[in-house]
Amino acid sequence: MAVSKCSHLSGPLIKQLLDSVDNVVFDCDGVIWRGKQVVPGAPDVINLLKKNGNGVYFVTNNSTKTRKMCADKLILMGFNVTEDVVFGTSYCLAMYLKNVCKLDGKVYLIGSNAMKHELEKVGISQTGVGPDPISGNDLDWANVPLDPDVKAVVVGFDEHFSFMKLNRAMQYLSNPACLLVGTNMDTRLPLEGGKLVPATGCLLKAVETAAQRQAQIVGKPSHFMFDCVAQQFSPGRDRCLMVGDRLDTDIQLGFNCGMKTLLTLTGVGTVADAQAHLESGSQERQGMVPDYYIDSIAEFIPALQG
Amino acid sequence: MAVSKCSHLSGPLIKQLLDSVDNVVFDCDGVIWRGKQVVPGAPDVINLLKKNGNGVYFVTNNSTKTRKMCADKLILMGFNVTEDVVFGTSYCLAMYLKNVCKLDGKVYLIGSNAMKHELEKVGISQTGVGPDPISGNDLDWANVPLDPDVKAVVVGFDEHFSFMKLNRAMQYLSNPACLLVGTNMDTRLPLEGGKLVPATGCLLKAVETAAQRQAQIVGKPSHFMFDCVAQQFSPGRDRCLMVGDRLDTDIQLGFNCGMKTLLTLTGVGTVADAQAHLESGSQERQGMVPDYYIDSIAEFIPALQG
Repeated sequence: MAVSKCSHLSGPLIKQLLDSVDNVVFDCDGVIWRGKQVVPGAPDVINLLKKNGNGVYFVTNNSTKTRKMCADKLILMGFNVTEDVVFGTSYCLAMYLKNVCKLDGKVYLIGSNAMKHELEKVGISQTGVGPDPISGNDLDWANVPLDPDVKAVVVGFDEHFSFMKLNRAMQYLSNPACLLVGTNMDTRLPLEGGKLVPATGCLLKAVETAAQRQAQIVGKPSHFMFDCVAQQFSPGRDRCLMVGDRLDTDIQLGFNCGMKTLLTLTGVGTVADAQAHLESGSQERQGMVPDYYIDSIAEFIPALQG
Repeated sequence: MAVSKCSHLSGPLIKQLLDSVDNVVFDCDGVIWRGKQVVPGAPDVINLLKKNGNGVYFVTNNSTKTRKMCADKLILMGFNVTEDVVFGTSYCLAMYLKNVCKLDGKVYLIGSNAMKHELEKVGISQTGVGPDPISGNDLDWANVPLDPDVKAVVVGFDEHFSFMKLNRAMQYLSNPACLLVGTNMDTRLPLEGGKLVPATGCLLKAVETAAQRQAQIVGKPSHFMFDCVAQQFSPGRDRCLMVGDRLDTDIQLGFNCGMKTLLTLTGVGTVADAQAHLESGSQERQGMVPDYYIDSIAEFIPALQG
């Protein structure tokens, strides 16, 4: 088993892999785009896969975009796609609260307008989005006004995150019946130029620490992301390929859902990291070892044209 | 050993314990005061201990007060004390950066004006205190302006904590030479009426998660708090009693420093919690088991008058 894991794909091996699958699930950032830049060749890859009859889906932990915003970005970049194949954490969160939690009430939202929009689209209203400034001195933190209809605290990326929001989340969560759901646990967001900024996982950790509970997570590597794809498109898992640049989210998701996994080196993850997981001997870390790796998905092109 | 741990003190046993020590170290909140209310009898206890020739010291993880602010509060409540026996995390942080770290540079401060004041008193300047509002849209988080003189990020209680502050801390800490120091790890602050608000530990967890490092901690249960007392007053540890209401900070500090330990039940900790630690069989948790417990330090009074 271990021998065949994490092998470099090139030439005819790429064609062999692509012939063995009917569906390909792509992460976005670091795989098909990097921030505002498209990965060269990526639109051709997606368009050829579709032309050849494959199902193509996108799963992203980015909670700051709606499905439509993602699809618009893809279309502008030259990808021939529609929003129904885009599965972001904003959308999947709304699905989770509606279909899994059967939420009957409002959400206290630490997150973005995109999350607000996707929640409202399934009939869930929110309070909390946007700035929550401190007013007055010597504030009575423990007695801030709360909305009695709130039945869940949800945490995604929020540039307006503040002590006040943390405190409000904690006060809501002092009710054991109030749910705590996070979009994802990514701790750092890589930007162009190698810089990093804090990601949702940092905010979630603060809320979890205050509330002394663990959040339920919707995003990768939770299988719920793929459940959303599976429910709408029923792709056979054994003929499904997960392509991503992060070992702890993308590759682990593929592993958790029984897909073949391919690491692409246009993003965060490295072969050295994957090898370290492989050789660690830790059972837990084996899920982060991809079956294959490739320099860029652009290498699919000859196999798809052939 | 285990048999004698966590025993209830009353009557002659109190006098026996007090006769066996020359120095008493008190936590503040939950021991001598509760928020704005003095614990009945506490001023008499402290004043009698001093009159009988004991050294009396106060150690508090509260980072929102200077030594002077604490002393002023104590004096107003009727305690006969001076600020040189008050050891709060604001002051101890300044000592730590100056004497242990030999900091040569500025501090990026996530914290209070009290911390700023104590730092400046030992010649350390800061940037960061107060609100750090977001200005403009589509902000370039990874390239926010940084102060090149900053050599340490310090984290205490900060009601102005925000994503921007978290991000700035992370950018400073991307330099491996930049220190990360926290005042304390308390995760929740109990207020009157049984309510809780998020405490410094939540903010610290967010920063640690973003920076992928662990902070050095100045406050209880770190022995550094007591080192500050010891350096200035040289109390013999075997004739020293630690009195506190929290098992994980106060009692653990006493244990870490070889003091006798007494839990008082006017605050957070309960006998049931202490018993659970005692009976856990976990070596690690034995440090949170007090030698003795008492309903309130007011019970010292007859022994001190006798």
